Amino acid sequence: MKLLDQHIDDSVFTTHESEVRSYCRSWPTVFNRASGSWLTDSGGRKYLDFFAGAGSLNYGHNNPILKAELIDYLADDGITHGLDMATVAKGRFIETFTSRILEPRGLDYKIQFPGPTGANSVETALKLARKVTGRESIISFTNAFHGMTLGALSVTGNSMKRAGAGIPLVHATPMPFDNYFGGVMEDFAWFERVLDDSGSGLNRPAAVIVETVQGEGGVNVARVEWLQALEELCRRRDILLIVDDVQMGCGRTGEFFSFEAAGITPDIVTLSKSISGYGLPLALTLFKPELDVWAPGEHNGTFRGNNPAFVTATKTLDTYWADNTLTAEVHRKGEHIHEVFTGLTERHDGLSTRGRGMVRGLAFAETTAAGKVCAAAFGAGLLAETSGPSDEVVKLLPPLTISDDDLTHGLDILVRSVEEVVA
Amino acid sequence: MKLLDQHIDDSVFTTHESEVRSYCRSWPTVFNRASGSWLTDSGGRKYLDFFAGAGSLNYGHNNPILKAELIDYLADDGITHGLDMATVAKGRFIETFTSRILEPRGLDYKIQFPGPTGANSVETALKLARKVTGRESIISFTNAFHGMTLGALSVTGNSMKRAGAGIPLVHATPMPFDNYFGGVMEDFAWFERVLDDSGSGLNRPAAVIVETVQGEGGVNVARVEWLQALEELCRRRDILLIVDDVQMGCGRTGEFFSFEAAGITPDIVTLSKSISGYGLPLALTLFKPELDVWAPGEHNGTFRGNNPAFVTATKTLDTYWADNTLTAEVHRKGEHIHEVFTGLTERHDGLSTRGRGMVRGLAFAETTAAGKVCAAAFGAGLLAETSGPSDEVVKLLPPLTISDDDLTHGLDILVRSVEEVVA
Amino acid sequence: MKLLDQHIDDSVFTTHESEVRSYCRSWPTVFNRASGSWLTDSGGRKYLDFFAGAGSLNYGHNNPILKAELIDYLADDGITHGLDMATVAKGRFIETFTSRILEPRGLDYKIQFPGPTGANSVETALKLARKVTGRESIISFTNAFHGMTLGALSVTGNSMKRAGAGIPLVHATPMPFDNYFGGVMEDFAWFERVLDDSGSGLNRPAAVIVETVQGEGGVNVARVEWLQALEELCRRRDILLIVDDVQMGCGRTGEFFSFEAAGITPDIVTLSKSISGYGLPLALTLFKPELDVWAPGEHNGTFRGNNPAFVTATKTLDTYWADNTLTAEVHRKGEHIHEVFTGLTERHDGLSTRGRGMVRGLAFAETTAAGKVCAAAFGAGLLAETSGPSDEVVKLLPPLTISDDDLTHGLDILVRSVEEVVA
Amino acid sequence: MKLLDQHIDDSVFTTHESEVRSYCRSWPTVFNRASGSWLTDSGGRKYLDFFAGAGSLNYGHNNPILKAELIDYLADDGITHGLDMATVAKGRFIETFTSRILEPRGLDYKIQFPGPTGANSVETALKLARKVTGRESIISFTNAFHGMTLGALSVTGNSMKRAGAGIPLVHATPMPFDNYFGGVMEDFAWFERVLDDSGSGLNRPAAVIVETVQGEGGVNVARVEWLQALEELCRRRDILLIVDDVQMGCGRTGEFFSFEAAGITPDIVTLSKSISGYGLPLALTLFKPELDVWAPGEHNGTFRGNNPAFVTATKTLDTYWADNTLTAEVHRKGEHIHEVFTGLTERHDGLSTRGRGMVRGLAFAETTAAGKVCAAAFGAGLLAETSGPSDEVVKLLPPLTISDDDLTHGLDILVRSVEEVVA
Repeated sequence: MKLLDQHIDDSVFTTHESEVRSYCRSWPTVFNRASGSWLTDSGGRKYLDFFAGAGSLNYGHNNPILKAELIDYLADDGITHGLDMATVAKGRFIETFTSRILEPRGLDYKIQFPGPTGANSVETALKLARKVTGRESIISFTNAFHGMTLGALSVTGNSMKRAGAGIPLVHATPMPFDNYFGGVMEDFAWFERVLDDSGSGLNRPAAVIVETVQGEGGVNVARVEWLQALEELCRRRDILLIVDDVQMGCGRTGEFFSFEAAGITPDIVTLSKSISGYGLPLALTLFKPELDVWAPGEHNGTFRGNNPAFVTATKTLDTYWADNTLTAEVHRKGEHIHEVFTGLTERHDGLSTRGRGMVRGLAFAETTAAGKVCAAAFGAGLLAETSGPSDEVVKLLPPLTISDDDLTHGLDILVRSVEEVVA
Repeated sequence: MKLLDQHIDDSVFTTHESEVRSYCRSWPTVFNRASGSWLTDSGGRKYLDFFAGAGSLNYGHNNPILKAELIDYLADDGITHGLDMATVAKGRFIETFTSRILEPRGLDYKIQFPGPTGANSVETALKLARKVTGRESIISFTNAFHGMTLGALSVTGNSMKRAGAGIPLVHATPMPFDNYFGGVMEDFAWFERVLDDSGSGLNRPAAVIVETVQGEGGVNVARVEWLQALEELCRRRDILLIVDDVQMGCGRTGEFFSFEAAGITPDIVTLSKSISGYGLPLALTLFKPELDVWAPGEHNGTFRGNNPAFVTATKTLDTYWADNTLTAEVHRKGEHIHEVFTGLTERHDGLSTRGRGMVRGLAFAETTAAGKVCAAAFGAGLLAETSGPSDEVVKLLPPLTISDDDLTHGLDILVRSVEEVVA
Repeated sequence: MKLLDQHIDDSVFTTHESEVRSYCRSWPTVFNRASGSWLTDSGGRKYLDFFAGAGSLNYGHNNPILKAELIDYLADDGITHGLDMATVAKGRFIETFTSRILEPRGLDYKIQFPGPTGANSVETALKLARKVTGRESIISFTNAFHGMTLGALSVTGNSMKRAGAGIPLVHATPMPFDNYFGGVMEDFAWFERVLDDSGSGLNRPAAVIVETVQGEGGVNVARVEWLQALEELCRRRDILLIVDDVQMGCGRTGEFFSFEAAGITPDIVTLSKSISGYGLPLALTLFKPELDVWAPGEHNGTFRGNNPAFVTATKTLDTYWADNTLTAEVHRKGEHIHEVFTGLTERHDGLSTRGRGMVRGLAFAETTAAGKVCAAAFGAGLLAETSGPSDEVVKLLPPLTISDDDLTHGLDILVRSVEEVVA
Repeated sequence: MKLLDQHIDDSVFTTHESEVRSYCRSWPTVFNRASGSWLTDSGGRKYLDFFAGAGSLNYGHNNPILKAELIDYLADDGITHGLDMATVAKGRFIETFTSRILEPRGLDYKIQFPGPTGANSVETALKLARKVTGRESIISFTNAFHGMTLGALSVTGNSMKRAGAGIPLVHATPMPFDNYFGGVMEDFAWFERVLDDSGSGLNRPAAVIVETVQGEGGVNVARVEWLQALEELCRRRDILLIVDDVQMGCGRTGEFFSFEAAGITPDIVTLSKSISGYGLPLALTLFKPELDVWAPGEHNGTFRGNNPAFVTATKTLDTYWADNTLTAEVHRKGEHIHEVFTGLTERHDGLSTRGRGMVRGLAFAETTAAGKVCAAAFGAGLLAETSGPSDEVVKLLPPLTISDDDLTHGLDILVRSVEEVVA
């Protein structure tokens, strides 16, 4: 019998896998196949995926264009594991990333391949910022999420996850993210004040790390002006600006980088999740050439050159980033989601919506409602997840390549689920 | 033109990639294909691989048995990216790992899938040990290597890599690894003494983290009795024992786990590198059920379920771990390397050899010789790397599945390279 | 020749004493005697003291009432050094402090005698707060000053002093002191928001440490309502409230404790400086009985029972704190200073004044002016010092017992000095 | 009624003072007067003092020579509290300390007056060492005691006291003190090895801090050769050597500094306890001139110039350190104690003795015996204390100026107490 048609009992997971498992609790079935915007479970039931691997599947599951390229590469015995050796697959990726992404945007970045996860890229960014500046302190933002390894966790806001460290997380200080006070307090009033004041007690920071849209934090969108002011503040004070684009990069907000809309140029950028385009682990850390002070091998990692991921990554760039079509599509579909959500907020009290491009949130004043909506959606064949400090936000991250019909279908399910819950 | 036949200029890497790159400096060519124990470069030159992805390719490059399974899975649209959802591929892996590896060895471990790198698994192990014990301090060993993220780096010995942190690395104290004093000092004399002494100033440790053979540290082999005494010491004092088997697990020393020879049962085990068998990123953290105190999602990660890697991993278990054949082969071939190396040490002053199974080191009193030997070997078509605090050791990690002819061929190159250098 | 009439050359200090010395640079002469509000130098020149040992001489230099008691005690061979043994001098102090200070104010505090400095008392307070709560993080305020030892320094704002630590100062987060934004931002808006928000990234604090008036920080006065709101916030959230009354206690603001005016009851109070009344080192840490979780000897110190200081301390309580006379005097004289300063601010642009009781500041928009005023005052026979993050404030701390004539005389000098400088 | 003849009830202490109190539990009476080697309690009972304020009363209680000088100074209205202003008392002390102590010993040290306790001096030494070297890590020794503030506590061994910190104590690593392995391991084998080995994981230290005799640690005496080897090791590796002479300085071991016997010259020396000679709080930090990199006021403290203590300190130097008489006496009396203790060890199993000059320990294999001996001694009118990690050592610190008769009397009590307990 084919592997994928074999029966797996639930008890395999509950008996042998750690209690740390999470998504499988919200979506209690055993999946086998996936294609485009759809997953299938062993029972043959289909689920429309509005979570897309937490933003790792911007081009859908098993995208056929990428799949063909990947299978060709594997069949042809292309290097699979190459540490950081020079390979054709890696060289082609670098060339393509440079010509399709960096050069057209006027970005002059050196590329580092850290371990193939977002957290590894964040760790790399923080280490480099500290090494370059000789300072230890990092400014993070309220409700930030940057990863689970000790360095990344220290700049992450969630208190439950922080507690998992088992040691005090220090060397980072949170500042209010955009609109943290609902507009009643001036942007950066506190941050500028403590930087200005030599008696404030704030250790002078090496860097600021920011998400332009906080996904885990509840789909909190930083305004363009806020990001511009943040960049300007960093420039004036010789603080490095790190944009963590692990979830919001690769077109999620429309443009390839989420910071393009603001016209800013971070000193360091982290990328992962959708960079391979096929759900294969890969991460990049980009930084201005003058920051490239690493000694050879000073930061390394066994899987830092995941060659199959280079192959699919290169193909995504040639396929989707040769012109503005995808960007326009993302804006159009994002607008559609926004309209549907706005309809809901107008018909029901206690709802609000926010987002950019194809990351959209529907926030519930009654915080338990979001979880109920997602559960109802799952029952109706739609995968969606909550986010925010109290899990009060339904967060949508559909594949960017989703068809209009599928998008409408999924939104219909969601609207019904909301109306069921808030009724 | 096929991707793999395209020409990539060296300048792609030197211009765009960070100065942090390392292996590509030792092996200055552009590779395209690989199969079994061999890599090929764009110029068609073949290289015998005695490094095997730093131990990530125990079953060789693009092992055809695994490759067939992988391509089938991809072609059949098996789930590629599934976060930590239950999937058939994951379920089959868990079942197989339990039945083929854990149960026959009498090991009762819960399985956690952290981010797909060794460092992520180490971070997970340290966090869990701290959470379980409520203590913060970790004991590491001289010349340990556990990874580059902040938590893993704090238990790593190498001073150059530590300096990359940019902040003081604290919460860990090094203890002497086996034979650190060349046999003149009693094992654990210092460690036991400071534990015994309530006035020693050592913070009571949550855990000890140890490699049974230190690969990066210079192929330092802990004796069986030393490991047994370490386990016994940890038991007596209620300290958790973590074995980092990222490089030495998956058969590298003969048995599946490197600690089997000592008959010990660690509380926590980290696995990565060769667990997928195909060079695909994957990592496991194993721990005794009573330590499974994680809250759902308390430690997570986007790529913690790399389904294609589950597929190849399962196939390695069915293919190579159904009986003792591979283990016997590893011992036999390892013995062969040992004999060749012993021949060298007998013929030349200032050489010594050490190792277990198919991890073998040739140490040079004149520390620069090791690098010269590897450079000469590369010139003759063999990839081998140095390790040790002064890069004074040639470290061999050939694929476990290497043919006798290839092994002999490579050892011949190595012997000639040594004789060229020490002549 | 009498000791005090011997000549000491300046070079003794410049040659042999560390460059760390500071006040002797502002007041470059060699003092020999002192009495009440006056010091004399070796040349016989007299200086009116408006600094009073940085608030350690609230009852003047060598107060004759205390002096008599002290000499009697010494002559009678009373215990001088008694560690923390029970002595008559210590017992009498405890009785008197309890009956004259604690009981009339309805305060039920346990008394601890840490090492005899303010920093030691702060270290004690922080250790106890962490031990009681099991949390590590402390909230301090912008421009706070709590001392120079590592624990106290970590909650101190001044960046020059912080840099002296030589290690990153962590485990503390600054919050805005009252009026930090000139009234445009709501009190505790930021602090409450990050406490409320489980995703803020702020480690839950063990305690808040606050000065009711920041002396070193620039004579920043917390309003009564702000202190009440702070206490209320701490109560609501189970955070301990530490008032550091080292400089502002012992009547400096009128009442014995500076927090009395706000009607709040801190969980922990630190006292030092003027507690002995005679300039002898002594410190107290007061805390609610339920916080007394110390094991015997868990925090100790050689000079924690400075018996001569107990003798003079007891006498200050009997002499000055048996009724409200001193309190009334402090308010009256403080008001007088305020009027003189207000006159200056009305006559000159760029000046402002603030303070409570007999701690008063005159702040200059042109920051270098404050130092020039103090230099001019010294030239005219008056000791006064600057404070604030840019040394922009002339800070007055005259003895509380200063005569009206001396106060007027000193203020006259100061007014002339200001007018010289701002003219 | 005279203060000293007033009755103080025990309940004053048990009701109002913190549970942290310690010595008063071993010696449960209320003392009033003291003179030379004797204390008296309110009931008129006399106690011979073999503890001398934990080494703060090397010249006895209320030494009449010092007392006369002190009362004169106070009566003449000499400056009592002078911050760090230049005063005649301070100038005379610096002159005398330089001419009587430093110059004859060929020591060229700058003098800093930190807060008036040993812990403050240790904090100063550590901050300076970090600032000078730019490194953060400090090497301490097993069973070290350096004080209770966070910096000092981090280099202290005792686990109960360390736990009081409430945060992980980091930035320091313990090394084995002399004879830690009973002679079976080479001195500094471990320390040198980890310094030599760039892969050891030890952060390169700024400084080593050491007591030549560990008082609190159990009267552990470092051999002269060990100290010399430690200095040589520090020189070779550019690590600063700090000798903490707070308890062992001021003649306790015979010579003024305890390190003189080894002929070494530390980079930094801490002094406190007996430096004032009268039990008044005072501390010094001495360091080589090239280390004097402090900015003015970078480390300060309210009581850093305790002028009455300068007066008595100067008098001790003129009286006791003008020639070698005291040193000879200390050696002679120390030898006497040693002989008496040796007699005990010869007559009874399980006893051993160690010490230098007039710090002597009697160690009991049966650890509870030491406490019983001290309790019996108290019953017979002698104050003596235990030390060591298990309180297994009776530690003698009699005044250096004790008469032969008193010394014999006290030793007789002690011998009888021992024989009572071990019988």
